[in-house]
Amino acid sequence: MDGDHPPTRWDEQWDVVVIGSGFAGLAAAIEAKLAGSSVVVLEKMKGCGGNSFICDGVMAAPGTTMQRNAGIQDSPDNMYEDMMQAGERLNQPSLVRVVVENAADAFRWTRDFLGVRYLDRVDQFGGHSVPRCYTTHNRSGSAIVGKMFAKLEALGIRLRTRVRLQTLLRDEDGRVRGVRARKGYEYPREDSGVVVHIQARRAVVLATGGFANDIPFRTAQDPRLDERIDSTNKFSTTAEGLREAMRIGGLPVHLSRIQLGPWTSPDEKRYGIGPDFASYIAFPYGVLVNPSTGRRIVNELADRKIRADAILATGNPCVAVADVKGIQRSGRTIDHCLKKGVVKAFANLEDVAEHYSIPREPFLSTVRRFNGYVRSERDEEWGKPVVEGTAPLETPPFHCIRLWPKVHHTMGGILIDTDARVLDLSKRPIPGLYAAGEVAGGVHGACRLGSCAITDCLVLGRIAGKQAARGGSAP
Amino acid sequence: MDGDHPPTRWDEQWDVVVIGSGFAGLAAAIEAKLAGSSVVVLEKMKGCGGNSFICDGVMAAPGTTMQRNAGIQDSPDNMYEDMMQAGERLNQPSLVRVVVENAADAFRWTRDFLGVRYLDRVDQFGGHSVPRCYTTHNRSGSAIVGKMFAKLEALGIRLRTRVRLQTLLRDEDGRVRGVRARKGYEYPREDSGVVVHIQARRAVVLATGGFANDIPFRTAQDPRLDERIDSTNKFSTTAEGLREAMRIGGLPVHLSRIQLGPWTSPDEKRYGIGPDFASYIAFPYGVLVNPSTGRRIVNELADRKIRADAILATGNPCVAVADVKGIQRSGRTIDHCLKKGVVKAFANLEDVAEHYSIPREPFLSTVRRFNGYVRSERDEEWGKPVVEGTAPLETPPFHCIRLWPKVHHTMGGILIDTDARVLDLSKRPIPGLYAAGEVAGGVHGACRLGSCAITDCLVLGRIAGKQAARGGSAP
Repeated sequence: MDGDHPPTRWDEQWDVVVIGSGFAGLAAAIEAKLAGSSVVVLEKMKGCGGNSFICDGVMAAPGTTMQRNAGIQDSPDNMYEDMMQAGERLNQPSLVRVVVENAADAFRWTRDFLGVRYLDRVDQFGGHSVPRCYTTHNRSGSAIVGKMFAKLEALGIRLRTRVRLQTLLRDEDGRVRGVRARKGYEYPREDSGVVVHIQARRAVVLATGGFANDIPFRTAQDPRLDERIDSTNKFSTTAEGLREAMRIGGLPVHLSRIQLGPWTSPDEKRYGIGPDFASYIAFPYGVLVNPSTGRRIVNELADRKIRADAILATGNPCVAVADVKGIQRSGRTIDHCLKKGVVKAFANLEDVAEHYSIPREPFLSTVRRFNGYVRSERDEEWGKPVVEGTAPLETPPFHCIRLWPKVHHTMGGILIDTDARVLDLSKRPIPGLYAAGEVAGGVHGACRLGSCAITDCLVLGRIAGKQAARGGSAP
Repeated sequence: MDGDHPPTRWDEQWDVVVIGSGFAGLAAAIEAKLAGSSVVVLEKMKGCGGNSFICDGVMAAPGTTMQRNAGIQDSPDNMYEDMMQAGERLNQPSLVRVVVENAADAFRWTRDFLGVRYLDRVDQFGGHSVPRCYTTHNRSGSAIVGKMFAKLEALGIRLRTRVRLQTLLRDEDGRVRGVRARKGYEYPREDSGVVVHIQARRAVVLATGGFANDIPFRTAQDPRLDERIDSTNKFSTTAEGLREAMRIGGLPVHLSRIQLGPWTSPDEKRYGIGPDFASYIAFPYGVLVNPSTGRRIVNELADRKIRADAILATGNPCVAVADVKGIQRSGRTIDHCLKKGVVKAFANLEDVAEHYSIPREPFLSTVRRFNGYVRSERDEEWGKPVVEGTAPLETPPFHCIRLWPKVHHTMGGILIDTDARVLDLSKRPIPGLYAAGEVAGGVHGACRLGSCAITDCLVLGRIAGKQAARGGSAP
């Protein structure tokens, strides 16, 4: 073992060392710098921004001017209650409170301080009791991350790529003093690059993200999530930062709460575009069928977890079917899905059965029964609410997508307090170590609501940066 | 810090050191001794047997002679599927497989080798697809633990009480070599007793049980479970053994999966006798009412988790009500509950309302509506199935119990493999360390089925003992 004590000589020295360049890490870096610290951000990949760069760029905040202008009544208390309900009340109340109380300020900060532009709309995502979700102008997290990069540059903060955390280094008293890292690291070769020792005179901020793509780590908690399950995340979202925090005694919480999306297709990588068709057309207006039996497997409008579990339980990708009336009713176009081949069109249901090797008679009988439920406005099999305007599935062309769940978000992580300090197995802060973003746990409990991740990352990332800057006993 | 390296001189030396004297620890001790090792069992409390001693003594096993004699078809595959379904398939399949394949043998072992006597009946507990549950003659785990004590004595195994694990000691290579403990420990004074160093020449077996009564540890995972929530367990079920395994790098799984019983009363300690009335009379034939509103809060026959969550969400103990016809229909007597005062009898519903400060009109209207559902055999509010023979709630005396959930079992723990070796954060075995029973995780996933804990403890405890005996590089 190399040990984890500080070296006799540091290769580099900074006040605050931030690990990870997504929302949380960049927010921490900016605040730490503004508070007077020298700061370096270490990013293991060649490209910066982590998973934040490819997310959909939707952020939740209560009590904003945009809500007021739209006549929407909202408050931190409302959002608190929504997050606690979704989280099955496993969330740490104090962390949720901090997130909702500081959400509107973090939103203004992105707009007024960073210069992020948002679409002129306020959306209501699933599980939110009112519209409070704001979408960046390019519908991507890159709009925020890009502005953060610019701010780093303006502030003179060093952002170093291909530097991978190897070991958190602690002194005799257990205080984190810096990191051993690999400089010139080439993903995924663990022994690539050269070892460097980087001192954090004040603190280390861990912002290494979730572990959606760490198959050994995630299968310990949920053995279903083996290599047959893709992820909506960048491939580099692995658990080494979280493991390091656990190794030095950080307390992990909610690790087995891993969110799967039921709307993803095995016929494209990551999130893709298939969810546009699945979520907005096939689930509300069509059916989801197990091709091995030709039968429906779930209420197509049940929550994410129920639907994803149902598909996984069949052991094979399932087929979602809608007819052209469903598409019309949704008011959407799916040309991009057809063009990519993720959604396929068929002249009749027999062709659907043949193409996907679905037993024909059971499948046709499933559609007949479903059409009966649509007419009677009562789904006697699965209790799916019949959405207004749903028509029987009988107007060609029929459009289909294969669906197989992908890992979307890992709610679990290392427990932090409201100052973003990492807590040990007895809930005492580990001196010199802060964490924020998906690597931290306790904010979302059993289930994260859509659009709350950016809020979480920005609010607690900013806190981590401010606290790290003042938090150390600089020598 | 005292450090966790072996001392220059050991106070005691054994081949195998077992921590904990419940089912798992005793089974490990017996097998290790039979395999030729010298063995000591360390128990922190004055009394031995831990929580195993007070449990209900029901064990599940498939494919037994008792089943065959009763004409019951069963197999390890059946039990595997039942456990995986209950566990939401978060269970480690290989561990479940080991438990179900060795369950019948472990059951025979208790009967033929230990001499445990069972009632002549095979019961079907909730979640089991067939009857496969066997109850000890005195309806208590003490019947098994008692025979195990006798076997330890016959085999000359030392069982030492009031010796509390403090630190797992490791050599330079990370191999567990023994323990630092406190001898003469007086619960709960952590600094009581004197420090001793006990060498484990071959291995340490951790069998320290669950953490149902460890409030700081359990609230990290589920903040609702604060000091206002009791437990059905012995007060000494705390997490120090699990924390030690985590401290040296063991991988915890499913820590946030904590099972609450909805059938317990705040008017008595631990499991008590109230569940006899709640489970078999009030839930099937009566109603469960929130005294703050006078309204029902849940389908009284929903699963444990749904019911416990519903009661917790009200913020106060709820009142379950049945009339005398419900009691008659159940075929049970509740004199013991009335005598203890856990269940109270009232001449009319108005008196019930007054006694529990339930708003009278809403409460009477709740009962009237419920009686309508009974007559129409359809519960339009909560969808509770109307059990055959249910009568409207109108025949005095009315019997009531206050209910408030208690922590019953902690599914999470340190991950082990099928040899009961403790796995580290990269899923490599930690040399010299085994675990079994409730401190280990991965067997039950999201939810343990009733009667599967004894099976788990005995099967994996025996394996841990056999492996520990051969597992070491004895010097």
